[in-house]
Amino acid sequence: MAEPKSDIEIARAATKRPIAEVAERLGIPAEAVIPYGRDKAKIDGAFLAGLKDRPDGRLILVTAVNPTPAGEGKSTTTVGLGDALVRIGKRAAICLREPSLGPCFGQKGGATGGGRAQVVPMEDINLHFTGDFHAITAAHNLLAAMIDNHVYWGNAARIDTRRIVWRRVLDMNDRALRDIVTALGGPANGYPREAGFDITVASEVMAILCLARDLDDLETRLGEIVVAYRTDRTPVFARDIGATGAMAVLLKDAMLPNLVQTIENNPALVHGGPFANIAHGCNSVIATRAALKLADYVVTEAGFGADLGAEKFFDIKCRQAGLKPAACVIVATVRSAKMNGGVAKEDLAAEDVAAVRRGAVNLGRHIENVRAFGVPVIVAINHFGTDTPAEIAALQDFAAVQGAEAVLCRHWAEGSAGATELATKVAALADGGTARFQPLYADELPLIEKIETVVKRIYRGAAVTVERGVIGQLADFEARGYRRLPVCMAKTPYSFSADPALLGAPEGFGVHVREVRLSAGAGFVVALCGEVLTMPGLPRRPAAERIRLDGEGRIEGLF
Amino acid sequence: MAEPKSDIEIARAATKRPIAEVAERLGIPAEAVIPYGRDKAKIDGAFLAGLKDRPDGRLILVTAVNPTPAGEGKSTTTVGLGDALVRIGKRAAICLREPSLGPCFGQKGGATGGGRAQVVPMEDINLHFTGDFHAITAAHNLLAAMIDNHVYWGNAARIDTRRIVWRRVLDMNDRALRDIVTALGGPANGYPREAGFDITVASEVMAILCLARDLDDLETRLGEIVVAYRTDRTPVFARDIGATGAMAVLLKDAMLPNLVQTIENNPALVHGGPFANIAHGCNSVIATRAALKLADYVVTEAGFGADLGAEKFFDIKCRQAGLKPAACVIVATVRSAKMNGGVAKEDLAAEDVAAVRRGAVNLGRHIENVRAFGVPVIVAINHFGTDTPAEIAALQDFAAVQGAEAVLCRHWAEGSAGATELATKVAALADGGTARFQPLYADELPLIEKIETVVKRIYRGAAVTVERGVIGQLADFEARGYRRLPVCMAKTPYSFSADPALLGAPEGFGVHVREVRLSAGAGFVVALCGEVLTMPGLPRRPAAERIRLDGEGRIEGLF
Repeated sequence: MAEPKSDIEIARAATKRPIAEVAERLGIPAEAVIPYGRDKAKIDGAFLAGLKDRPDGRLILVTAVNPTPAGEGKSTTTVGLGDALVRIGKRAAICLREPSLGPCFGQKGGATGGGRAQVVPMEDINLHFTGDFHAITAAHNLLAAMIDNHVYWGNAARIDTRRIVWRRVLDMNDRALRDIVTALGGPANGYPREAGFDITVASEVMAILCLARDLDDLETRLGEIVVAYRTDRTPVFARDIGATGAMAVLLKDAMLPNLVQTIENNPALVHGGPFANIAHGCNSVIATRAALKLADYVVTEAGFGADLGAEKFFDIKCRQAGLKPAACVIVATVRSAKMNGGVAKEDLAAEDVAAVRRGAVNLGRHIENVRAFGVPVIVAINHFGTDTPAEIAALQDFAAVQGAEAVLCRHWAEGSAGATELATKVAALADGGTARFQPLYADELPLIEKIETVVKRIYRGAAVTVERGVIGQLADFEARGYRRLPVCMAKTPYSFSADPALLGAPEGFGVHVREVRLSAGAGFVVALCGEVLTMPGLPRRPAAERIRLDGEGRIEGLF
Repeated sequence: MAEPKSDIEIARAATKRPIAEVAERLGIPAEAVIPYGRDKAKIDGAFLAGLKDRPDGRLILVTAVNPTPAGEGKSTTTVGLGDALVRIGKRAAICLREPSLGPCFGQKGGATGGGRAQVVPMEDINLHFTGDFHAITAAHNLLAAMIDNHVYWGNAARIDTRRIVWRRVLDMNDRALRDIVTALGGPANGYPREAGFDITVASEVMAILCLARDLDDLETRLGEIVVAYRTDRTPVFARDIGATGAMAVLLKDAMLPNLVQTIENNPALVHGGPFANIAHGCNSVIATRAALKLADYVVTEAGFGADLGAEKFFDIKCRQAGLKPAACVIVATVRSAKMNGGVAKEDLAAEDVAAVRRGAVNLGRHIENVRAFGVPVIVAINHFGTDTPAEIAALQDFAAVQGAEAVLCRHWAEGSAGATELATKVAALADGGTARFQPLYADELPLIEKIETVVKRIYRGAAVTVERGVIGQLADFEARGYRRLPVCMAKTPYSFSADPALLGAPEGFGVHVREVRLSAGAGFVVALCGEVLTMPGLPRRPAAERIRLDGEGRIEGLF
């Protein structure tokens, strides 16, 4: 067992290989590697386009039980599994989301894995990285500026300024910008109106960048964004404002996948990072497709637990991009089973086999759900130091009853060596040819029935109720040609239900759809069930107060 | 004479050398080159720190007559002169400002020179480049978020929320954000107040980054920023909010100078770009000092005409950084002389020697002014196709009467070959040892007398009047220890006076100081004479409507 060290210490102690050498492990030639610093790169677009006739590798999704304050380690397992696949001799690549800059200064740590299963350079990836999120911020806000400018110069598109739905974004936790009034100060500044800022990861531009196949598709989707409505309630699109060409120009480089390495020097594509509530929470299609052309096994992850993350990965990302996952890994922990079984966070250290058994029902439900998509499942038990053999056995026994194998993994402490069993079994499962992937519902189903299908079949709720106006809005979306879109559920990640306190595997609850929003460019209809905050605030003592450069110019306090 | 081509065509036709090879021309080893893509790089900080005991090269400032709609070509001349110095066998480097992203989508073209005197890759430099401005935006807005967050969680520093002077920034032309009300929407969003956004180049963080000697100095200066006042009018500093460490972390990479190349493959450092009105309008001190260690001749520029740009270069940048310019080039054109002589823009093509003579007084005044700083002057006449021999001779004769040589340059059309005479004479002037640089006024002079000195000796105004409250504010700044700061004049660039219509070499006018602002981190006191817009708007038909990717993924319409 390795000496305990902090994530940042382990990351800094890693011996990084030149990024061109990491690229070579995927057969990417040096001329297709566009360096950003010494240890980050983008992959050339022409090279990627040239891969299109190659066969695809096997796609493996890493998802998890419902998140608890104990922490499950989904990114860590994604990285550990990727490294372990390489260790057992497979050509493997990892696809992760890019972390958001704003929350780093609040209380959230980084999002690059942990322990001996990390991608590096962790500071850069968590801060500006290759500038993708800054480009998205700029493209989003250019559109916003052009909308107000359009109104200012005569409003030829007849925008109802009370119904401008395109907000602005910053990659910053700044609650004061949630609700603002703009264009005060007199005629030179335009027409005052209510407006607001979201965090950049909540931008529809982010979702679009992550779902677009290529630059043409990107530009088409940008044009489809509904930015406002007229007094007759007809939509005004971004293309009506003439913004899409310039937005695509701003996003040109951001569309190229980023290549970094794990601390074991294996390739990882880290690209795109949409919210997992009002958006689909997966890394970019362009990175996933590239990885599938370059590797035999591609390990990727989706946001939150499988009820939100895996469902959206299957029903939005795979549906839109034509991806066919070969296997799914559900990350579970003894600790999260105990919390789902009613144990408080401060009592997690004490052995409680009964609580593990009680809480494992949460895992069981996710296993069933993933199988409903036709994807074979394996459970990865991410080992924590406090887990006892009896607790682990209880979790494994529970999974076995569900017909799923649960493999204990120690990648956090041991790196790839701690996950070879998982890797061997995942590879066998993916190679087994048992996957018969299909989305949960057909494109043709009416939007409200799509929502009901997810609530009843995935969440196991009894009924869907809707706020006044929602049915009319959905009918309006359908009349305008959006009936075939999948739905994107925005609800709490902490429970199958919309009530974060309802742990385990609840049933019979109601889900109330408070609001629906059209993301026409991204290609989904968002159903908001409960409050969803699209602009976080900073805590009383923000991490920013502790973040600084030490005497040697290294970053302190970020993690 | 070369075939006429557009700037973008010339830039694209340029054969770029690998950036490491360009670095080598300045003796920068490959391991000190941090690549950003294939044709941009940052220079390693440890390498730069190791240069400190080398002797400095000669610093040459390129400034200009007051700008007219005819265009003078200051950046173009800076690039052309740099290339020509190399052509005549000198080891030379160019230092330019980074252009702002926002205005690219309005009506301004790029800011990377023109014709055969350009730096490349022009699209990248004009768009995201190496992300410096995005980092400044993030650092600036983190401080803003932390101020409102500080108030939200109890306001321990007792900030008077009516007197928060730190605004937010975006690198975007967005007039609707000039005057806003934030934190609406109820208690969870904080305390509503008047606020607003400036464009990123107007951020004090930009000015600080451009004046800081190193990371320590950067962090100290960030801490000195006055963000608000208490009800007793005492200042609240950024360091009181605990933001400076995290801001420095965000700016760590942005502090490293960017290396690109001219279309003749000569090295150019393009770094920093503060406003030339409410800030000092020069590229970074860190880049200029690096260039002086690496080259025998360093050609740099300052914003607007010499009344604003050169004065601030000398009185703010050189004063703070201890730089001693060896020579100054004033860019003049026949066309701008004619406009200063009363000719309308549409009549510029017709020969008008008398108008050239009348308008040359503007040049004459700038020659006198630069000499007042103890810096020897040469005039570069940037050639335009419509100039006639008699007009050129009139301008040269006028300069000769002032004792200054005026050299005709054709670098726009011919590249370095068109500026060898200028280069030879500039090198001789710089080598001549005649420079006796000294700032215009002593540090000890009271702030109001500094303003009067600039108005009377540089602008040749008769008197300074001030808005009610300004004298008290200046007294307050002095009482708080800011008496030694230089002043940063914010006035129209189009005239020596504060009235943009007063061309030529006006005298006897009054200058009214409407407002003074303390930039304690940057280290100057801004005196605003007339309206200064710190957040531009987009025009009726923004350039963004024409900007797009062509079929091959190249950028159309940006220039």
